Amino acid sequence: MKEFFKVQTPDQLFKKMDRFRALSFERVSIEDCLHRVLYEDVVAPVSLPEFPRSTVDGFAVKAKDTYGSSDKNPVVLRVVAEIPMGQVTDLELKDGEAVKVATGGMVPKGADAVEMIEYVEQVDAQTIHAFKTLSPLENVMQVGEDIKAGEIVLRQGHWLRPQDIGVLAAVGKTDISVYRHPRVAILSSGNEIVSIENSPKPGEVRDVNRYTIVTMVRESGGIPIFLGIARDQFDDLKEKIERALREADMVVLSGGSSVGTLDLAVEVLQTFPATEILGHGVSIRPGKPTLLADLGGKPFLGLPGHPVSALVIFHFFGKPILKILSGFSQEGVWHQIKVKARASRNIPSVPGREDYVRVKLEEKDGTLWAHPVFGKSGAIFHLSQASGLIRIGINEEGLETGEEAQVILI
Amino acid sequence: MKEFFKVQTPDQLFKKMDRFRALSFERVSIEDCLHRVLYEDVVAPVSLPEFPRSTVDGFAVKAKDTYGSSDKNPVVLRVVAEIPMGQVTDLELKDGEAVKVATGGMVPKGADAVEMIEYVEQVDAQTIHAFKTLSPLENVMQVGEDIKAGEIVLRQGHWLRPQDIGVLAAVGKTDISVYRHPRVAILSSGNEIVSIENSPKPGEVRDVNRYTIVTMVRESGGIPIFLGIARDQFDDLKEKIERALREADMVVLSGGSSVGTLDLAVEVLQTFPATEILGHGVSIRPGKPTLLADLGGKPFLGLPGHPVSALVIFHFFGKPILKILSGFSQEGVWHQIKVKARASRNIPSVPGREDYVRVKLEEKDGTLWAHPVFGKSGAIFHLSQASGLIRIGINEEGLETGEEAQVILI
Repeated sequence: MKEFFKVQTPDQLFKKMDRFRALSFERVSIEDCLHRVLYEDVVAPVSLPEFPRSTVDGFAVKAKDTYGSSDKNPVVLRVVAEIPMGQVTDLELKDGEAVKVATGGMVPKGADAVEMIEYVEQVDAQTIHAFKTLSPLENVMQVGEDIKAGEIVLRQGHWLRPQDIGVLAAVGKTDISVYRHPRVAILSSGNEIVSIENSPKPGEVRDVNRYTIVTMVRESGGIPIFLGIARDQFDDLKEKIERALREADMVVLSGGSSVGTLDLAVEVLQTFPATEILGHGVSIRPGKPTLLADLGGKPFLGLPGHPVSALVIFHFFGKPILKILSGFSQEGVWHQIKVKARASRNIPSVPGREDYVRVKLEEKDGTLWAHPVFGKSGAIFHLSQASGLIRIGINEEGLETGEEAQVILI
Repeated sequence: MKEFFKVQTPDQLFKKMDRFRALSFERVSIEDCLHRVLYEDVVAPVSLPEFPRSTVDGFAVKAKDTYGSSDKNPVVLRVVAEIPMGQVTDLELKDGEAVKVATGGMVPKGADAVEMIEYVEQVDAQTIHAFKTLSPLENVMQVGEDIKAGEIVLRQGHWLRPQDIGVLAAVGKTDISVYRHPRVAILSSGNEIVSIENSPKPGEVRDVNRYTIVTMVRESGGIPIFLGIARDQFDDLKEKIERALREADMVVLSGGSSVGTLDLAVEVLQTFPATEILGHGVSIRPGKPTLLADLGGKPFLGLPGHPVSALVIFHFFGKPILKILSGFSQEGVWHQIKVKARASRNIPSVPGREDYVRVKLEEKDGTLWAHPVFGKSGAIFHLSQASGLIRIGINEEGLETGEEAQVILI
């Protein structure tokens, strides 16, 4: 039995990705920084709030004036002012006094709590009944309680979500430095591969991988550059990879047949002086014939030609590389969204390799079930019915019906 | 105690969203349809594969010729041809014969299985030893096994992921009809709100909601149009909402103070002939002062002014409305990504309203822990530390330390 590959485990290959480095940065408006990665630590220049604010609509009071009040026994307070939103006041509250404030409004000096309007009965313009006993600082946000001046509010490597962009706005950042988007050259190869607008002749197949990889790159924050379909010829492949290295930060080749093209790619890569082949063959199903190389600092990922294998391998190997180039923190690079689900039937697995079983998720009576979607690795349709992958480790033997497993969402 | 709102439950308000309708469609290239929603059912024009294909590298054989073979007892087969990738053959396999094929290559007539190259020893150019007994159809994908001609491969309302786009490519669709992106007019309001490039004077606050809502709209596939900060004046608000209705499919207003602005908005909306107020006030924390209206078919969502409340309300009310306008299936509209985690400490809740507790997720020894991130609702910083929300139902009493709960990822 011939050994075609020096097969490595996925973990061995993951560790070799450490060598790749994040790209440079650019300045962007915070309105355009959604799902970008911070290049800098962001420090708050001021404390927030800058004045004591009410967190409710109601009356600013001295908490001690409300002690003992209840639904049946209100205290009587004298309304001395109303502070409109957006206005400051020098007023200082005295015992037995109340000042009307809106949510977000300033709590005047002397006041240390706010009685919510729901617990107040307005007797006349100058008088209220307050029905609830307050603790000091109840319904008041103190100066610096949200953010303290000088505090790092977001760190380099953070992936920016709307709530983070809210923090940037709150501290007055109008633009920030983020890592630039990696440019990813995408090549299809294989003599049997034809553009999708063609009707494939017998023996030919449409170039499915172009579209799955282009859109996965886009989904992961990369800029895809499709360079066409390379023939299984040394010169054509070499010319296209050279162009890829000129134009992009990373090269992804989807092989045609599982062995031939990637072997040819190895030959081509070895003609470049700075090439280091990091792995060729990984103990994973689907996706064994995977090729990872370092081309003078630029990652090269060779994917199996079968659409399902290509998609799974790009998910597990391509995405973390893209995240490294994009400046993600170490934790972010390896983060996967996982949910727990029960296998709806036995899922067998062959020991000696990691198995990624495609599953469809269905919630039924509060339990999440994972239905394996079986289909040979060339079948793309089955994959589109799947919304997750269950990883069965190298030394595990599959799952029994009803057994709980982690499902990686795809 | 004054009743400011006719408070409804979130579910009551969700049900009222049924009245909104999906927008029209546009044609896009499948390369540009990532995360768009299909407007049409997609029917496969041909079967896939169109010829019997090998799913492995190896030798096409008659399965019965391998019966009885094993690691120690190979069968001897005669190699009569090699079928290069992308080529068809009329050859018909006879008993005892084998034809070399690559993964994805055509399996010739007469052959019904493929012996993987790993189980083959090539004795000479014409002879192999095959070490593994095959079942009929093993390692062969039959015509139509992936997709059958006439089959609906993707349905209207489906949200397109890379694997779906692969299916579109496989069946030769170069462009498709998808629902158009909803245009969402975003208004901030409140006399105390200033643009973020300004240093707020005492009593003023920066317009945080503009940025969180703009980016959440973008994240949900909408096109945000920011129309500026409205003063708390009838005329200014009316003029801006009229402009919003001219330019957009949906209007989102983030109120300044919690009561005043949205009350004013109700007055403004009621001057339009086709307005129907669907809800004003919802039993949810944070976010009680929420306003939902139907402006002649265009949804209007009024958010509380506090950044955290605005974000939570937009997540639960704004996103489903956007998904309805975007053509999502009923299931897709209400889909939330949830993970199970254990409360790292007691999380109290007040019955009578739904509570959305912000939590930070941390995996420790294989268990996912949810740490509540406490902070008053005006505090934006705490929210950026959260990655999920735990819903505590109207009649529930909170969680005890160690109790498991569903966390909605944000």
